[in-house]
Amino acid sequence: MGCSSALARLERVREQTERLCEPLETEDYCIQPMVDASPPKWHLAHTTWFFETFVLKEAVPNYKAFDPAYEYLFNSYYEGVGTRHPRPERGLLSRPLVSEIYAYREHVDDALRNLLTSGPEDEWLRRIELGIHHEQQHQELLITDLKCNLGHNPIRPVYLDKPTNPAPPVSSQTTFVAFGGEMSEIGATLTTESFCFDNELPRHSVWLAPYEIADRLVTNGEYLEFIDNHGYQDASLWLSDGWAEKNARGWQAPEYWFQQDGGWFEYTLHGVEEIDLRTPVCHVSYYEADAFARWAGGRLPTEFEWEAAAQSGNDLAHGTFADEAHFHPRPQNPTFCGDCWQWTSSSYSPYPGYRPLEGTLGEYNGKFMANQYVLRGGSCATPHHHYRNSYRNFFYSKDRWQFTGIRLGRNLDH
Amino acid sequence: MGCSSALARLERVREQTERLCEPLETEDYCIQPMVDASPPKWHLAHTTWFFETFVLKEAVPNYKAFDPAYEYLFNSYYEGVGTRHPRPERGLLSRPLVSEIYAYREHVDDALRNLLTSGPEDEWLRRIELGIHHEQQHQELLITDLKCNLGHNPIRPVYLDKPTNPAPPVSSQTTFVAFGGEMSEIGATLTTESFCFDNELPRHSVWLAPYEIADRLVTNGEYLEFIDNHGYQDASLWLSDGWAEKNARGWQAPEYWFQQDGGWFEYTLHGVEEIDLRTPVCHVSYYEADAFARWAGGRLPTEFEWEAAAQSGNDLAHGTFADEAHFHPRPQNPTFCGDCWQWTSSSYSPYPGYRPLEGTLGEYNGKFMANQYVLRGGSCATPHHHYRNSYRNFFYSKDRWQFTGIRLGRNLDH
Amino acid sequence: MGCSSALARLERVREQTERLCEPLETEDYCIQPMVDASPPKWHLAHTTWFFETFVLKEAVPNYKAFDPAYEYLFNSYYEGVGTRHPRPERGLLSRPLVSEIYAYREHVDDALRNLLTSGPEDEWLRRIELGIHHEQQHQELLITDLKCNLGHNPIRPVYLDKPTNPAPPVSSQTTFVAFGGEMSEIGATLTTESFCFDNELPRHSVWLAPYEIADRLVTNGEYLEFIDNHGYQDASLWLSDGWAEKNARGWQAPEYWFQQDGGWFEYTLHGVEEIDLRTPVCHVSYYEADAFARWAGGRLPTEFEWEAAAQSGNDLAHGTFADEAHFHPRPQNPTFCGDCWQWTSSSYSPYPGYRPLEGTLGEYNGKFMANQYVLRGGSCATPHHHYRNSYRNFFYSKDRWQFTGIRLGRNLDH
Amino acid sequence: MGCSSALARLERVREQTERLCEPLETEDYCIQPMVDASPPKWHLAHTTWFFETFVLKEAVPNYKAFDPAYEYLFNSYYEGVGTRHPRPERGLLSRPLVSEIYAYREHVDDALRNLLTSGPEDEWLRRIELGIHHEQQHQELLITDLKCNLGHNPIRPVYLDKPTNPAPPVSSQTTFVAFGGEMSEIGATLTTESFCFDNELPRHSVWLAPYEIADRLVTNGEYLEFIDNHGYQDASLWLSDGWAEKNARGWQAPEYWFQQDGGWFEYTLHGVEEIDLRTPVCHVSYYEADAFARWAGGRLPTEFEWEAAAQSGNDLAHGTFADEAHFHPRPQNPTFCGDCWQWTSSSYSPYPGYRPLEGTLGEYNGKFMANQYVLRGGSCATPHHHYRNSYRNFFYSKDRWQFTGIRLGRNLDH
Repeated sequence: MGCSSALARLERVREQTERLCEPLETEDYCIQPMVDASPPKWHLAHTTWFFETFVLKEAVPNYKAFDPAYEYLFNSYYEGVGTRHPRPERGLLSRPLVSEIYAYREHVDDALRNLLTSGPEDEWLRRIELGIHHEQQHQELLITDLKCNLGHNPIRPVYLDKPTNPAPPVSSQTTFVAFGGEMSEIGATLTTESFCFDNELPRHSVWLAPYEIADRLVTNGEYLEFIDNHGYQDASLWLSDGWAEKNARGWQAPEYWFQQDGGWFEYTLHGVEEIDLRTPVCHVSYYEADAFARWAGGRLPTEFEWEAAAQSGNDLAHGTFADEAHFHPRPQNPTFCGDCWQWTSSSYSPYPGYRPLEGTLGEYNGKFMANQYVLRGGSCATPHHHYRNSYRNFFYSKDRWQFTGIRLGRNLDH
Repeated sequence: MGCSSALARLERVREQTERLCEPLETEDYCIQPMVDASPPKWHLAHTTWFFETFVLKEAVPNYKAFDPAYEYLFNSYYEGVGTRHPRPERGLLSRPLVSEIYAYREHVDDALRNLLTSGPEDEWLRRIELGIHHEQQHQELLITDLKCNLGHNPIRPVYLDKPTNPAPPVSSQTTFVAFGGEMSEIGATLTTESFCFDNELPRHSVWLAPYEIADRLVTNGEYLEFIDNHGYQDASLWLSDGWAEKNARGWQAPEYWFQQDGGWFEYTLHGVEEIDLRTPVCHVSYYEADAFARWAGGRLPTEFEWEAAAQSGNDLAHGTFADEAHFHPRPQNPTFCGDCWQWTSSSYSPYPGYRPLEGTLGEYNGKFMANQYVLRGGSCATPHHHYRNSYRNFFYSKDRWQFTGIRLGRNLDH
Repeated sequence: MGCSSALARLERVREQTERLCEPLETEDYCIQPMVDASPPKWHLAHTTWFFETFVLKEAVPNYKAFDPAYEYLFNSYYEGVGTRHPRPERGLLSRPLVSEIYAYREHVDDALRNLLTSGPEDEWLRRIELGIHHEQQHQELLITDLKCNLGHNPIRPVYLDKPTNPAPPVSSQTTFVAFGGEMSEIGATLTTESFCFDNELPRHSVWLAPYEIADRLVTNGEYLEFIDNHGYQDASLWLSDGWAEKNARGWQAPEYWFQQDGGWFEYTLHGVEEIDLRTPVCHVSYYEADAFARWAGGRLPTEFEWEAAAQSGNDLAHGTFADEAHFHPRPQNPTFCGDCWQWTSSSYSPYPGYRPLEGTLGEYNGKFMANQYVLRGGSCATPHHHYRNSYRNFFYSKDRWQFTGIRLGRNLDH
Repeated sequence: MGCSSALARLERVREQTERLCEPLETEDYCIQPMVDASPPKWHLAHTTWFFETFVLKEAVPNYKAFDPAYEYLFNSYYEGVGTRHPRPERGLLSRPLVSEIYAYREHVDDALRNLLTSGPEDEWLRRIELGIHHEQQHQELLITDLKCNLGHNPIRPVYLDKPTNPAPPVSSQTTFVAFGGEMSEIGATLTTESFCFDNELPRHSVWLAPYEIADRLVTNGEYLEFIDNHGYQDASLWLSDGWAEKNARGWQAPEYWFQQDGGWFEYTLHGVEEIDLRTPVCHVSYYEADAFARWAGGRLPTEFEWEAAAQSGNDLAHGTFADEAHFHPRPQNPTFCGDCWQWTSSSYSPYPGYRPLEGTLGEYNGKFMANQYVLRGGSCATPHHHYRNSYRNFFYSKDRWQFTGIRLGRNLDH
């Protein structure tokens, strides 16, 4: 990535973050509806902190930090940087003000612009590139956390009106496609043009037994059948931890669903809508995805099965990404990506020969490689340019506030 | 209270609440730093809800509620009104917006004005009077909750600059004054002019053994001696529940105190200040007040001892009330009221013959008469006009975020 | 108390503790069904520890402790003695064995016998007297904790068969008796013969307004009416803390009650029995007692009202005490004491001029004088000789595992 | 397995369980030191319940259950059987008595003997075989739970004296052996003679990149170097969840280790012993194993790497198993099995084509395939005959009370 293209890209991404906040009221910036979901203000500041900490403070001699307190306030989890404001208390800070955070962004953007026009070393270019992808990740989190914020407000405010462009016509039948019975190459292929996170490397061989995989996501209609067939009441369908979690939390349907006057509705970022049976089901935990798959006579695919199949699907049209500003899944034609992140049965762990980045940035991915499950495919809240088939997202098995859905796999020879 | 004086008083009090919010930024209105401390926005709305629910909806035919959702959102604890938004989630609501709450206030003020100019029945006048006192109570809570909000922000913002008017000169010596050995009359005397809560009635007789009581509050200087004498480390000074609470929370000093560079400082609503040894100690729990008193060779007075003594002190100048906009205690001359609420050793319980108000308003006081301790005297956050010597405030023994201090009592004949 | 009578009394009480354990199996000695309820083994050891710590280690030169580890293991809450085994883990100790605890008791009994026959100083006689009363208190706790242990076992084992002696005939009508309108003397009268705890002193004057008090306890039949009248569903009857506690714990009836085949039953130490409508209701919290009283148009008496009335009732037959080995309340004729401890509306606090015992024994009572309520009257688990009208028992408002019942009071002039 | 050999094997295993309990006192049978660790009494009963529920009640017409309440009391986690006594309350049951549990075992053993001598169908033979292996699993848990029970008692009782047979001489140097770069066959090979759990099937192919693996376990001496090098203080070595868990629990060394007079000691089932530097380190969590491996420049092997290597090591002598009644790891020569279960980096998940057993027995393994990590190799508490190289044990990453140790792996070509 050259300096000028880097600058253009940086500006585009930074602006996009702010564009996502345009519909917000000042009050919306401050709320943390649960520990996992940070306030918009925090996302705006933390992405900026990332550039300040890992680029400007190291690359720019005599760089003057915007506010020394921010090092503590907006560090997410980097032990190598020092102590930090406790995550559960991100929603307890009325100050710094939203306007101050925007000024912070401008201060850092200016300094980055100066740096980029000064012919920086490659290392800083690489870190800026990482910071851009980091900010895109947080664009998705900003959307999911905002949905959690507004969606748990009893008056269920609208974030954006629904785009009026009609959904494309969709074919009605899910088809299973056979793969496997061979070695597959898994992981990112690095070129000078491309970017990937350290956790997508090294590319390596995996032997895959024969399997089938669905050509699209499970729909609300299919999921409603599971509900109507007492899927939430039948312990034999559930993992033990999942059954306990479901009971403890009283889950009876995906997050944001509710029943009223005998019908099913869900909160979307366009407000409350009736459940559309053709749309991919969304906001389910790993446990629900796994139970549904068992009920449907299938299973979740591994991340390797998923990636091998997805490589074959590159000619397919893709589903909904964030660029469409729809922020809710839509009925799908055959595709592997878009609309909902797809739970795989693979625990998040390092690829053989994995090496984290050097220094504190090594905390970016590696230290989370335990107790979480890999999700693939991107979602309606993911910037399209940020996505690639080797992308490994990861969340805990109980998490439901992301746009998480289900693609079925099946054993082929049994 | 006549209609026109009621109207004047109502307007004054309603304006005063909003005046207290003038220094706030929009972001400050939304924060709930702990379960006990509600956001300013909530106080603005709940006090309005009180008038709407207990006056307008009953007194005004065809009254149109500002927003039907508010009945649920801004009910504090009235079971008789119905379900309500959970208290721990008051800080999770970005909407209604601050501007909408101000519009709500205007809507209700207009309707109250119409009602008052229409010659309402006495019952509505009585309820408006109650609503005015209710709003004054919440003015104090707004200040204490805001201090909790700003004071727990690592950057410790200033609410208001310190008034420049100098504190009056104070005499340096605490004197103990003897009372008791006789029957005392305790409780409010009702006249047509005066107001009191139901919990101050009926006025009744109590026999008091001889006792002494200090003519002013314990100071920071005296409390520092307790700290320096290892008061926080000596279990023999503490109630059992207090010792456990102190250890669980790691208390080593009053709330808002901290040590830096060998000195003691505290957060005030004017920002961080060095501890002033002459100022009454503030933000201590009942446990700390009790342990200090034991260490000092005294004890906390009962609320009856306190009130009997306070009746004799009516000629004294009073301490700091909210009207001075100082919002922090100041060095005292002999007085019984102002600066800090004073923990008494009396559990909050009904006076003999106590009758709560009729109907849902009976939940105002009576249902809290368990597990809490009575505080007397008013504080620097209490509107002066709201205060009277028979006033019974009450909090749990562990609470420290109110302006709570210590007045010593002593047994006389031992 | 002379040495020989002290010795006789000591032996009688120590034997009685062990007699209470005769029906136990080894396994029963080890269980702690909840934090509050200690294992029988612990009671046997702790009462012995009390004599060893406060008498033998101080009074007997070169006294050899039975096992040095016991100082830590069997200290209940005396900070002055040092650290101790955490209370919630008393049921996690399989060792020392039950047989070792009995050997410990023998070791200490022998040493006490030697001490008492050696003509000890008065201080040691006083402490032995205190230890005897301490052991009697723990006899009651042993019974209540054992009921909790067995009663929460799904197979509900029997502790003792029900004595076959028939209950006396009872009169059917509760009468309210008027008192008050005068000064009353409250607290123990100390004579050379009598014993009392420090919290019963000093005897002092209290002015009591006129009131009425029931001549017996509320019965199961009356309490069932409260249940059938939706007493547990009507928030207007409950204290705010009580309503929250009831909801959190799902209370629908007193502890140990359950419904089966349309009827009400309760676990007793004789096994499961049908609810007897004439028996005093038992195992209710302060909150339930208070709600029942409000529903019944009365209130709980203060401890002073109770004691003043009880002094007048000394000619009455008494109710059931532990000496009858019935361990369950029985239908009552007019009496003030026995069967069930009676919740009063008085918070547990020091009498005017209260002085705790000197030194570590001062922790016996004084440090608990916060957040608890006074109960009066003794119960079917209290040794009769241990009881007196000035006796102040105290528990938290949520506690239900003691034999706690209700006596109604009423304002007279309303 | 024929009927007579099944009977002989059944009797041997059932007797062995009771032999393990011979050193116990009655009190030891009842204790549950933490939720995970069940009382010995429960293990004795539950293993018997397993035979009664899955064999006798189905196979024997008119089988008379020993006690109907046991179906509820001793069900571990089988939803298909019905509700059950809550796991956290297993230590709150003094009844049934230990003697009753032994009578229960005799009752069931008699019935099984009758069944086996009556020529039962193959299905019952298969279930009895499963029950035998189930009981052997619980023999290990009985030992680990007992160690937790005794080891957390402040007086640290001895379970068994240390066997006097000397440990074999050991070579001092750990060697890394290279494997991989080929397809490997993973999983059990079923023959008519052998047994395996459903989770070891089907045998399937896995491609393994080249790797190295240590020929023995990490020793206490090596682990002490990690401690002395501030391994517990260096966040960069830890997984994020591990760092949080370590801090929350205050871990500074493996479970059962403590420092005294400058030296390191550990509780063993033979009592307290000084740390032996040559012995494999034991009682570490997955987090500690992972952090140690990172510190040592290696990583944990996958379960596939482990199994492929272990197949090559079949000629090696094995380490310590439960049959030696040593119940503590001992210094090792090169071996793959025995002494300590070895954490692998593999999340516990189904093999491709995995099928759980039919019916309720399908809950045995499959429903736990989430959030846990696979351990391999057996331990000093595992019956040797119960062990095989394809055996997959699984625990949560935070668990430390099993005999869990560390074998290092390494990437070969980086």
